[in-house]
Amino acid sequence: MPVPDPTHAPTLAVIGGGQLARMMAEPAAAMGVPLRLLAEAEGVSAAQVIADHQVGDYRDLATLRAVTAGCPVVTFDHEHVPTEHLHALEADGIAVRPGPDALVHAQDKGVMRKRLAELGVPCPRNAIVATVADIEAFGFPCVLKTTRGGYDGKGVWFVRSVDALSEVAVEAFAAADASGVRLLAEELVDFRRELSALVARSPSGQAASYPIVASTQKDGICHEVVAPAPDLSPELAGQAQEIALRIAGALDVTGVLAVELFETNDGRVLVNELAMRPHNTGHWTQDGAVTSQFENHLRAVLDLPLGSPAPRARWTVMVNILGGPDATVGRLYDGYPHALARDPHLRVHLYGKDLRPGRKVGHVNAYGDDLDECLERARHAAAWFRGDLGNESE
Amino acid sequence: MPVPDPTHAPTLAVIGGGQLARMMAEPAAAMGVPLRLLAEAEGVSAAQVIADHQVGDYRDLATLRAVTAGCPVVTFDHEHVPTEHLHALEADGIAVRPGPDALVHAQDKGVMRKRLAELGVPCPRNAIVATVADIEAFGFPCVLKTTRGGYDGKGVWFVRSVDALSEVAVEAFAAADASGVRLLAEELVDFRRELSALVARSPSGQAASYPIVASTQKDGICHEVVAPAPDLSPELAGQAQEIALRIAGALDVTGVLAVELFETNDGRVLVNELAMRPHNTGHWTQDGAVTSQFENHLRAVLDLPLGSPAPRARWTVMVNILGGPDATVGRLYDGYPHALARDPHLRVHLYGKDLRPGRKVGHVNAYGDDLDECLERARHAAAWFRGDLGNESE
Repeated sequence: MPVPDPTHAPTLAVIGGGQLARMMAEPAAAMGVPLRLLAEAEGVSAAQVIADHQVGDYRDLATLRAVTAGCPVVTFDHEHVPTEHLHALEADGIAVRPGPDALVHAQDKGVMRKRLAELGVPCPRNAIVATVADIEAFGFPCVLKTTRGGYDGKGVWFVRSVDALSEVAVEAFAAADASGVRLLAEELVDFRRELSALVARSPSGQAASYPIVASTQKDGICHEVVAPAPDLSPELAGQAQEIALRIAGALDVTGVLAVELFETNDGRVLVNELAMRPHNTGHWTQDGAVTSQFENHLRAVLDLPLGSPAPRARWTVMVNILGGPDATVGRLYDGYPHALARDPHLRVHLYGKDLRPGRKVGHVNAYGDDLDECLERARHAAAWFRGDLGNESE
Repeated sequence: MPVPDPTHAPTLAVIGGGQLARMMAEPAAAMGVPLRLLAEAEGVSAAQVIADHQVGDYRDLATLRAVTAGCPVVTFDHEHVPTEHLHALEADGIAVRPGPDALVHAQDKGVMRKRLAELGVPCPRNAIVATVADIEAFGFPCVLKTTRGGYDGKGVWFVRSVDALSEVAVEAFAAADASGVRLLAEELVDFRRELSALVARSPSGQAASYPIVASTQKDGICHEVVAPAPDLSPELAGQAQEIALRIAGALDVTGVLAVELFETNDGRVLVNELAMRPHNTGHWTQDGAVTSQFENHLRAVLDLPLGSPAPRARWTVMVNILGGPDATVGRLYDGYPHALARDPHLRVHLYGKDLRPGRKVGHVNAYGDDLDECLERARHAAAWFRGDLGNESE
């Protein structure tokens, strides 16, 4: 139902109907930028709030061409669109942001590690392994990762010693073979904590760098983010920002780039993963920064001047709301009467998803001057929605 | 295309497809609350961003019943739905918020003045006038207003002296007769400035009161808002808040109530107008308050705990973007490259409307510690979008 647009705003195509696309819709409405969505199915998170949407398969070029017709720019909720299709869209004259030559580094960890090594970016020691002997030669403890397709702890195996190798290796190689990808071995980094460096970069090269944040994972899924990372030395914060800006520039990333980092116990930062889209470690910016990562992603892919990434509060804490093992005890809308009454300053973001074990269904942001208080507020609220509180006797 | 909702959130019906409904869509998406819209036409401001919408006439009860089917609550973008239809919806079991018995005070200035007098709320001296002799008896200078249907300077006539009366009276009585309404005469208040008191009130009686703001009108249309009102005595600010809370409670308003006030040169506040919906004088809250008026309107009509109305910055300045006399020189999306590059902290809100003379098409918010700087930033940006800058030689 696209309507002729007299406001001179281009329609921006977004591929993928998850919560990241949903959260792009808020600043898009404020900016007066129409979005056109390709959703996996009717009723998915972003399709609920983006009026102009089509349902289809992002792996099908004809579908991609249909949804991007008339759109000067296309961007993404996820990194899974085949790069050959993106090259075809570029050949059609559509600006693909981020472009396929950048995106491949977020799709393929083998390609990413090779490129970062060329750039001199500090990474964990790593090698492509083709046999069990390769893994033994690489050494232990190590982490095995499929080069493509892994996310939120999937496609990742920890190997503490040679004793555990044979069993894990069989599973890992089978998984890699099944999806036709390679296996990457990486040293198990003895890290103090995980950090994240978020930048938004436009085609003309403007790049806004958010404060470095500390993130905590649970079962391989982002759980909690503190912005800015407490007690981070200015030197290390500067290094982390410089690394993210260098990668964004060298890979010609357009839009938001998230660089997940390990802060080692001996005071270094090493790149763990790259994501080329708004990222869970940047959700705090919705309420804690002058310009949210979602708005700056839109501005970047549209080649508009970027907004300030400056924090608006001393501290902002983000905690994810995840479906617990028993999804029936979790709360969504029905968690509001308590959560909002307890904390009139709390910011809640729900994604319009139903509760399933381990599924990200929302997050809360708490900002203020006192970190412990922000942590307590955000953790309490997330636990309440998750159903960890108030259901002890059930 | 409503989808069964497993998140327990009710679908909220919104009548009217203007920018106020559009701006409700942003917090609704964040809160996980589905909206269903009745729009005046396909492609209007809110219909662009609310996927689940129908097109129809809000004066038709069958249309109202169709759009609210399955919705426990209905709210509004404007105050023009006939109260008899709202009573019918209430009889159907739908919660109408604000309800018709409250809303009539925002629809009919005669009813409003009578009720406020009963409540002892300070108002300009006023009387219903049926003849020219009534107006002469009321005295000059005075303002004539149709009791219903006026907005943004329409349906309002200023009468400075008896000399001007006959001509104006003919026009005013003709306008009132044409729409079957009465004429209200009000004393012309010698005011220092206009203030606005904004409260959000829930059915259970919780009421959040925003700081009192100062507003400037141009040609009867809100032009600029400064939050909080500079140099306002705490006593007068308290009186203004108390008046708004008293009206909201006595009239059983649910949702946002805006009370427009005159601050007189002798240090009193008098009620000018009431609006029962998010209001132009509250747009600053989107970027300047912990909880925006749009989110608190949603929370209030859904009877959820209200969010904090506290300001997030020392000063926030809102300036409207209006179509100038020559709409071709105005800028919308094409105003971004300069406006955003000049001021990375600027917050812009465009409504997806095309430029027409005098039409509200967006607004900008600038917040910070220095009022003069905020004023300069917001005024510059609004003038740029309006086309008052950079087109001098054209």
